[in-house]
Amino acid sequence: MTTISHVPIPTSSPDLPPVERQAALPAGFKAGGLAAGIKASGRPDIAVIVTTGGPASAAAVFTPNRLAAAPVRLSRAHLAATSGDARGGFGLAEAVVSTSGSANAATGPAGDADQLEVARLLASLTGVTLEGTLHLSTGIIGTRLPLDRVASGLEALVPRLTDTDAGLEAAAVALRTTDSVTKTATTRVILPGVDGMPVTVTISGIAKGVGMIHPQMATMLSVVLTDAAIAPETLWGLLRPAAARTWNQLSVDGDTSTNDTVFLLASGASGAATVEPGTEAAAVLGAGIEAIARDLARQQAADGEGASTLITTVVRGARDDADARAVARAVVSSSLVKAAAHGRDPNWGRIAGAAGNGTLPSAAVLEAAGLTAAEAAVRAGTPAVVDTASLRISIAGHLVFEGVAGGPVDFDRPAARAAMDAPEVVFSLDLGLGTGVGEAFGCDLTETYVIENSEYTT
Amino acid sequence: MTTISHVPIPTSSPDLPPVERQAALPAGFKAGGLAAGIKASGRPDIAVIVTTGGPASAAAVFTPNRLAAAPVRLSRAHLAATSGDARGGFGLAEAVVSTSGSANAATGPAGDADQLEVARLLASLTGVTLEGTLHLSTGIIGTRLPLDRVASGLEALVPRLTDTDAGLEAAAVALRTTDSVTKTATTRVILPGVDGMPVTVTISGIAKGVGMIHPQMATMLSVVLTDAAIAPETLWGLLRPAAARTWNQLSVDGDTSTNDTVFLLASGASGAATVEPGTEAAAVLGAGIEAIARDLARQQAADGEGASTLITTVVRGARDDADARAVARAVVSSSLVKAAAHGRDPNWGRIAGAAGNGTLPSAAVLEAAGLTAAEAAVRAGTPAVVDTASLRISIAGHLVFEGVAGGPVDFDRPAARAAMDAPEVVFSLDLGLGTGVGEAFGCDLTETYVIENSEYTT
Repeated sequence: MTTISHVPIPTSSPDLPPVERQAALPAGFKAGGLAAGIKASGRPDIAVIVTTGGPASAAAVFTPNRLAAAPVRLSRAHLAATSGDARGGFGLAEAVVSTSGSANAATGPAGDADQLEVARLLASLTGVTLEGTLHLSTGIIGTRLPLDRVASGLEALVPRLTDTDAGLEAAAVALRTTDSVTKTATTRVILPGVDGMPVTVTISGIAKGVGMIHPQMATMLSVVLTDAAIAPETLWGLLRPAAARTWNQLSVDGDTSTNDTVFLLASGASGAATVEPGTEAAAVLGAGIEAIARDLARQQAADGEGASTLITTVVRGARDDADARAVARAVVSSSLVKAAAHGRDPNWGRIAGAAGNGTLPSAAVLEAAGLTAAEAAVRAGTPAVVDTASLRISIAGHLVFEGVAGGPVDFDRPAARAAMDAPEVVFSLDLGLGTGVGEAFGCDLTETYVIENSEYTT
Repeated sequence: MTTISHVPIPTSSPDLPPVERQAALPAGFKAGGLAAGIKASGRPDIAVIVTTGGPASAAAVFTPNRLAAAPVRLSRAHLAATSGDARGGFGLAEAVVSTSGSANAATGPAGDADQLEVARLLASLTGVTLEGTLHLSTGIIGTRLPLDRVASGLEALVPRLTDTDAGLEAAAVALRTTDSVTKTATTRVILPGVDGMPVTVTISGIAKGVGMIHPQMATMLSVVLTDAAIAPETLWGLLRPAAARTWNQLSVDGDTSTNDTVFLLASGASGAATVEPGTEAAAVLGAGIEAIARDLARQQAADGEGASTLITTVVRGARDDADARAVARAVVSSSLVKAAAHGRDPNWGRIAGAAGNGTLPSAAVLEAAGLTAAEAAVRAGTPAVVDTASLRISIAGHLVFEGVAGGPVDFDRPAARAAMDAPEVVFSLDLGLGTGVGEAFGCDLTETYVIENSEYTT
């Protein structure tokens, strides 16, 4: 399905289990997808996942965009309603619905009413509570959902949901917009069972992006399912740091959409014992979740609009992990670095320059990554520490800069260029300042990106 | 020289004096430029400005990039040495030298030694103190300055410096790298003279950017001269907020270079009385400085790499000016908005989406813009407040979104597209939340940008 391998790169969660790029429906769910006619192309555009054994624990990460779309606001409200968590980060869920073709963003009160109507339809057809529904949407900003088509689509789809891998694969296909490939990832971890015997738990994720149904707004949607047993807040505690190290380190074009959403649902149907926070089982499950998150993020970067190369930046030797992530993210976000990657140009000056712009994110993101509230408040928006005197840079395995040796290194440019002519290019930076590690994922900037995104919307 | 007019847009300094795009050397300076052979093209590449009546008050704004180039570090040290200001923001200066063709960045201790040698040569040839020299450089990162060529260039240039407008124009030409036009701006303000009679004070700026001598790293360099009389720290107090509202609101490709520098020198030779902080004269001089800064920033945006359109985003009705600037900056920095501008696509969904990503900058930038240290610490890195319910968006004069009326507005798309087909496109946002105003300047994203920046460096 893809030529991108799971590059073994050290992360701050070093023991991630291996991932296979396929959909594997965990126990306790049914899923499916079909074409409801929202997309003009006639491709699958509606997906539904429901639980088969009552409410699942659910955790979510949403876009920080201030103009969050109607499905984001409704999902947050539903999670808050089922858990009492005012932030809307976790709760209980029985159904997830995704529509492709309309983002239902910037549609005002009418858009909120439309999304609520989708919730009512879904609850009625599946027999779940209104607050048990979670919502995803992607597509053109400012257009209303075609409720009649959504309704007839749901009526056709709900009876056809299946508890098979093919059902989850169909949901993944329906999540796509202009994605060139369907994005799926599965891993399995061993957890203690309720009877004390080892139980295999499945974690399987589907994702879309970053492509557009129409050149309006990139969106990143992901749903991860597992049959592990775990309380909602504990699940959220595993999702947030995993997302901070993976999806939050993904950049295709620097635009954060109004609709970005990750849902993680745990059915508890595996027979595994309930995972308690701070236990070995939580660490194992967390690593599995992070493995899926990381692999989906890499698939999303590789399939960025117009992209021909996945760019992975690995930073070691930072003052701490937060600094390392900030520097890695600055490198993959640089237009000049992205353009150089497109030209297979081992242009280390741009990498160094971008690294020097590494800036720590908001306090909310730092807290999600594991910093205390006090640390996060102090460090939000501050520059990461980088020093040329201790900096080392390698491009696709070629050492190009070594601060302690005076700076620029004579290297074999033709060989470096040849090494960059690959589906994935790795930029490695060692800051020489500490033990912090981090990575980030992006893609090259191509003429195709500009052409695709400068066409008229009308 | 240019078709871009000085668009009358409200800023938080509403009474900016008019600007002419020409060089006009203020009293108390000599200037010049010539080709020293640093650039392979043989174009002018070395510029010198000296004071004729002893040290001038000097203020500076430097790149926040952690890997600041050797000329940045040396200039900061010299300002600190002459003023005792540990931040290196202001001091006394007698000479400015600019070299184009090598950035002298990431060149290690050898690069620092090279820049110090340039200072020694300049001090020796002009008879000024070593600490009285300020330094600018632009070009390829990681290459050493060709000291022999710089030396012979300085030896030829220093005797030819003139106290004419042509001398400053020659310096502006030598500042250029791949700039398609020479960037100059002049304004005049009336200040009280030492004898109480009104005196005309000249403020004239030259700038380069944002282009590259070679596709390595965009750089923004500006020098502004005036014959006003003012203490260094007072001058710095005028430069910082002006830069925060203008140059800090300029984005071409999101990359902050290792060499970005603005110098502002005041010779005191006009006969005007010394400008004291907090006075009417300070407000008049500050508005003049901001007018020059704003016009040069607009010239730099319009001449961005591969750009065909200047994008100006004006935000009104924000909670405060800091929020307004953050939202304006987010819009001009969005790759999707920039690509849509290139396609003359009135794609308001992308503008709304980008506006929702407005994030306040670091505490240092907020303090420079006038916030107290306490306010700056609390708000750094936090999102600006935007709400679709009260948002209004106009594109090139066409209202396209009105939150209070439900959101999207039916508008004349062909007319809007036609209006966008101009050297400047204005996106106007009214947030409907307060009285904050701000603006930002950028350019469209074109295939040419990608092509220019993906070519090999070798």
